[in-house]
Amino acid sequence: MPPVFTPLNDDHTINYSVIPEYAKYLANAGIKSVLVGGTTGEHMSLSVGDRKKVIDAWVKVAKTTDLHIQVQVGGAPLSDVLDLASYCQKVGADSLLTLPELYFKPDSVDTLVDYVELVANAAPNLPVLYYHIPSMSKVEINMPAFVTKATNRIPNFKGIKFTSNDLSEGAQVLRALKNDQEMFLGADTLIAPAALLGIKSSIGTTWNLFPRLAQDILDAVERNDVAKARSLQETLSLAIEAHTVEGPWVPIMKAGMEIVSGIKVGPPSLPQKPITDEARKRIESKLRKLQIID
Amino acid sequence: MPPVFTPLNDDHTINYSVIPEYAKYLANAGIKSVLVGGTTGEHMSLSVGDRKKVIDAWVKVAKTTDLHIQVQVGGAPLSDVLDLASYCQKVGADSLLTLPELYFKPDSVDTLVDYVELVANAAPNLPVLYYHIPSMSKVEINMPAFVTKATNRIPNFKGIKFTSNDLSEGAQVLRALKNDQEMFLGADTLIAPAALLGIKSSIGTTWNLFPRLAQDILDAVERNDVAKARSLQETLSLAIEAHTVEGPWVPIMKAGMEIVSGIKVGPPSLPQKPITDEARKRIESKLRKLQIID
Amino acid sequence: MPPVFTPLNDDHTINYSVIPEYAKYLANAGIKSVLVGGTTGEHMSLSVGDRKKVIDAWVKVAKTTDLHIQVQVGGAPLSDVLDLASYCQKVGADSLLTLPELYFKPDSVDTLVDYVELVANAAPNLPVLYYHIPSMSKVEINMPAFVTKATNRIPNFKGIKFTSNDLSEGAQVLRALKNDQEMFLGADTLIAPAALLGIKSSIGTTWNLFPRLAQDILDAVERNDVAKARSLQETLSLAIEAHTVEGPWVPIMKAGMEIVSGIKVGPPSLPQKPITDEARKRIESKLRKLQIID
Amino acid sequence: MPPVFTPLNDDHTINYSVIPEYAKYLANAGIKSVLVGGTTGEHMSLSVGDRKKVIDAWVKVAKTTDLHIQVQVGGAPLSDVLDLASYCQKVGADSLLTLPELYFKPDSVDTLVDYVELVANAAPNLPVLYYHIPSMSKVEINMPAFVTKATNRIPNFKGIKFTSNDLSEGAQVLRALKNDQEMFLGADTLIAPAALLGIKSSIGTTWNLFPRLAQDILDAVERNDVAKARSLQETLSLAIEAHTVEGPWVPIMKAGMEIVSGIKVGPPSLPQKPITDEARKRIESKLRKLQIID
Repeated sequence: MPPVFTPLNDDHTINYSVIPEYAKYLANAGIKSVLVGGTTGEHMSLSVGDRKKVIDAWVKVAKTTDLHIQVQVGGAPLSDVLDLASYCQKVGADSLLTLPELYFKPDSVDTLVDYVELVANAAPNLPVLYYHIPSMSKVEINMPAFVTKATNRIPNFKGIKFTSNDLSEGAQVLRALKNDQEMFLGADTLIAPAALLGIKSSIGTTWNLFPRLAQDILDAVERNDVAKARSLQETLSLAIEAHTVEGPWVPIMKAGMEIVSGIKVGPPSLPQKPITDEARKRIESKLRKLQIID
Repeated sequence: MPPVFTPLNDDHTINYSVIPEYAKYLANAGIKSVLVGGTTGEHMSLSVGDRKKVIDAWVKVAKTTDLHIQVQVGGAPLSDVLDLASYCQKVGADSLLTLPELYFKPDSVDTLVDYVELVANAAPNLPVLYYHIPSMSKVEINMPAFVTKATNRIPNFKGIKFTSNDLSEGAQVLRALKNDQEMFLGADTLIAPAALLGIKSSIGTTWNLFPRLAQDILDAVERNDVAKARSLQETLSLAIEAHTVEGPWVPIMKAGMEIVSGIKVGPPSLPQKPITDEARKRIESKLRKLQIID
Repeated sequence: MPPVFTPLNDDHTINYSVIPEYAKYLANAGIKSVLVGGTTGEHMSLSVGDRKKVIDAWVKVAKTTDLHIQVQVGGAPLSDVLDLASYCQKVGADSLLTLPELYFKPDSVDTLVDYVELVANAAPNLPVLYYHIPSMSKVEINMPAFVTKATNRIPNFKGIKFTSNDLSEGAQVLRALKNDQEMFLGADTLIAPAALLGIKSSIGTTWNLFPRLAQDILDAVERNDVAKARSLQETLSLAIEAHTVEGPWVPIMKAGMEIVSGIKVGPPSLPQKPITDEARKRIESKLRKLQIID
Repeated sequence: MPPVFTPLNDDHTINYSVIPEYAKYLANAGIKSVLVGGTTGEHMSLSVGDRKKVIDAWVKVAKTTDLHIQVQVGGAPLSDVLDLASYCQKVGADSLLTLPELYFKPDSVDTLVDYVELVANAAPNLPVLYYHIPSMSKVEINMPAFVTKATNRIPNFKGIKFTSNDLSEGAQVLRALKNDQEMFLGADTLIAPAALLGIKSSIGTTWNLFPRLAQDILDAVERNDVAKARSLQETLSLAIEAHTVEGPWVPIMKAGMEIVSGIKVGPPSLPQKPITDEARKRIESKLRKLQIID
C-alpha cells in the first residue's frame, strides 16, 4: 500500500488538482489501498483544515478508483487528532492509522494503549491501527506487548504499521496479532525477508515509485523463488540508497516520484526543503544504471 | 517567570474563569511576566482555536495586572505554529517562545535555525526565543553553536529557555548570548547553582507554587549568602521531589498548585491523567514537613 | 558456527575437562568451526592467563576433531588484546575476531579502523574479523563504511560478525564485502530472512543447542522452501524466547545447553548469576511443548 | 584531587622515572591525594602487570610526599579487577575506586551493587568508591538509589566519583551519602556551582594542570564571594574549552599538562593518538590569552 504524497505548489499551498491523476496512476499500477497523511504525506506539518481537505479529495477519488482510503490522523495535538478521527468516520474513510503522542510521550505499554484508545473511541466504526515508527516518534515501546494489550482493551484496534528494521520484533508482532488484524511493514529494504517471515503486507513509499518491483518481490517469495526475491530486493534497495544518500526521506522521495512517474508532487512541506537539481540528476542517473527507468 | 497552567474543568474543557484570579495571585506574589503555552500549560495538547482563546484571556488580564505575556507557540504542525506566531503579534503578546519541530526533527544547527527563522518571520515585531527541552522534544542540538548562528541570521532572535540539567552547556550558552538577549533556566532544582554561574532568570513551574522561595534563592546568591542559597535550594528541591515520585510533571504540578495555592487548575489535558487522591495526600504531607505549607 | 561456552565449575574455576567431550558433541552434530571467547564464552570476564589456557584447550581438541578455531580476542585492555592476538597466531588458532575498544570508544569509522588495524598487525598471518555487537559494546559505527575502509587499509581484514537485528544494514555490509571475506550473522531469530538476503553463515548460541534446527533452516532457504524455512525459524525463535524471558543471555543459554545436551557448562562467570531452578524448569517445559526435546 | 596521568615514553612503554618528579610537583602545589588509574591515567588500556607497577610506583612516592593514594581498579575483565583490588590492599594503597562492568553491563541498581560488592570484598580493609561516568561506561543507573542500596549492603562502600554534568542528580547523591562517605565531582567546568550545592571535593584533570585555580574557586565559594567564584570558574572553563575543541580528553590533557607544567607525561596510551603540534600551539596561545600561563 502506498503512503501517498501530498502534492504541493511551489508556494507550499496544496495542489489538489493533481490528486485525481495521481489516484489513477496508482490504480492503473494495481494498487488497491492508499495511506493518506503518513510520513510521506507530511500531514504532521499541515493544519487540521488542510488535512481535512486532503482527506476529502482522496475520499472523493476513491469513488471512481475503488481505492481503500486509510488515513493517518496522528502527529498533532490530541484534540486535533480526535477531531480528525471523528471526521474520517463521518466522511467515509475506510480505516485509520495513528502515531503516538509526540510531546507527552507514552512511557509504558499502558499509556500508549490509553492514547490509541482515545483515538479509537473517536471513530468507533472504523478499524484503527497503530503507527510504530520509533526513528521519527522516539516512542520505543515493546510492540508485541502493546499489541496484546491493545487487542484486549480496544474493540476496533486492528493492527500495526511496523516501521522498523528489527524483523525479530516484527515476527513477534505478527505472532501476537489475531486473524482479523493486519500488519504492514514500513521498511522498503526488507520486503523480501519480511515476506519470508510471513509479513506480507507493506506500506512504503516504494509503492508509489516502484509498485511493480515491490509486487514482484512479494510474488517471488510467494512462489518460492528465493534467488529472484533476493535479486529484486537488491535492485529495490539500491534504488532506495540512490535516494537516501541525497537527503531526508520526504524531499528525496518527492524528487524520485517526479523522476519516475512524472506526477507533479512538488516540493516538501515546510520546514523541509527540496533537494538540489544536481542531487536529482544523480538519482536519475543511478536509477538508469539500475535499469529501473529508461 | 512562571509558565502558567491551563485551568481545566473536569470534562477537560478550558476553565477561562479562573484566569483573572490566577493572574492576580501571581501579580500579588511579585511576578512580572508569565509564559503561556509551555509544557506546564500543555498547549501541545490543545487545538489552535483553544490556544488562541487562552492567549486572548492572558493578554486581557495583562492589561490590569501589568504582566509581560510570553507565548510558547510550538509543539504543533508548522502551519499552526506560524498561524499562532502571527496571531500573537496581532493581539499584543509581548514575546514568543518556540519548541523545535517534533516530527521532522532538525538534525543540525542549520536545520534548527531554519525552523526558528520561519517562526520568527511570522512575528517580526516580537522577540522570539527558542525552547530547548531535549528530554521532551528529543532534539539535542549543541546550544552554544545554535545561539551563535541564530543570532547571526534572525534579527528578532532574543534568547533561549534552557531546560536541561547540564549547567556546563548552560554557561556556554550564556557566554554566547548578546546583551539584548535573555537566557531562562528551566530546571527548578538548579536555580542557585545556575545563578552562581550568572544565569539569573528562570522559567519554572516552581514560580507558580513557590514564588517566594525561588526569589529568595536568587536573592541569597545575589547578596553572596552561599549557605542560605544552598539551604533554600535544598528545601525547594525536596519540595519538587515530593511531587516527582508521584508521576509525570504536569499531573503532579497541577495537584501541587491546588494544594499550595487553592487555585483550581483542574486535571491535566488528555492524554495525561490526574494523580490519585492518595498521591495528593502524600505530597501535602511532605510539603507540611518541609514547612512550606501550614 | 557455535560460539562455545566456557565450562565452569561451581566455584567459578574453569572446567577444562569438559572441553574434549564438548568438542566431540559439536563435531558429531556436523559442526566444522567454533568461536572461542565470544560473548557466549564470556572471555570479557576472564584474565589473560585463563583466556590463553582456554585457547590452548580448544587448539588441542581441534587436532582430533578437525574444527576450525576462531578466537575472539577483544573485550580487555588493548595491551592484553594485542598479547592475545599474537598468542593466537603463535599457538595455531585459525582466525581472529575482535570487539572494539570498550572504554575509549571509537567515535568514527577511522578510529575504529585504527583499533582493528592494531589487532590485525599483532597477528599478521591470521584472518581478522570485526565483532559488531552494538547492544553490548555501545559502539554504533556505520558498518558498510567501516568494512570498505578496513578492507582498504588492513590486508588481513577478512570480515565481520554482525550481531544486530538490522538486516537492512546487514545486506549493505554483504554488498561491501569482497569474495575472500566472510559475514556471520549473530541474530539467531533471523537466520532464515538473512539467508534469503544472501547472509548464509551465522555465529549464534543456537548452534550449540540446536545445530540441526539451524542447519535445517539454511537448507530450506537453499532449496527454496519458504514455508518450511518460516516454520523452522518460528520454532527456533520460540525456543529462544523460552529462554530470553528468564534472564540475561549467557545465564539462560548455559542453562539451556545443559537441558538440551547434558554437557556440564556450569554457571556463568562472575559478575553474572545462574538462573533459578524454577526458570530452568519453565524453559525445559516450553522446549518440550515445542517438541525440540523429548 | 588530581587523577594522575600515566607518563609514557614515545614507544608507549611506561616512563616510571617521571613519577617522583610528578608527585613532588603535585605535593608542592598543595595536593594531598591522587587518583591512580582513572580515565586520565588510562589504566583501561594497560595490562594488569603494568597497572601493578604503576601502583607500586605511586605507593612508593607516597612515603616521601605523604600523598593519599586512591586507585581505580575497574575497566578490565572482572577477574583482573578483583586481582587488582586485592593487590592494592596488600601493597598499601589507601582507597579504591571502581568502574562498573563494561561488557556485561549492570541493568539495575541491584546488579550494579552486586558488582561493586565483589570488588569491595576483594579489599575488605580499604574504603571503596564507585566511579560514575556514564559518558564513557554507558552505564546509567540512578545514583541516589544505588548509593542507598550499596551503603546498606557493602560495609566498606565509602562514596562516589560523580562524573556527570547533572548537578540535580549530584545534589541528590550528596543527600543520600552518610557522614563517613565522600562525594567527588568529576566535572571541571562545574566546580563552583557544585560547591554551592555542598559538593566540595572533586577529582578532575584540572587539579593536575591548574591546581591553584581549582582551589581558588573552592575558596571563593567558601568565603561567599560569588562574583569571584563565577569569574574564576569562567577562566577555568575557557581554559578547558581551549583543549576540548582539539580532540579527545586524554590526548588534549596530556598535551596541556606538558605545556603548563613541563612534566613529560608523553603521548596517550594506544589506541589513542597524540594531538598535532598545531593543536598544541593553539592551546598554548589561548591559555596565554587567558593569562593562565606566561
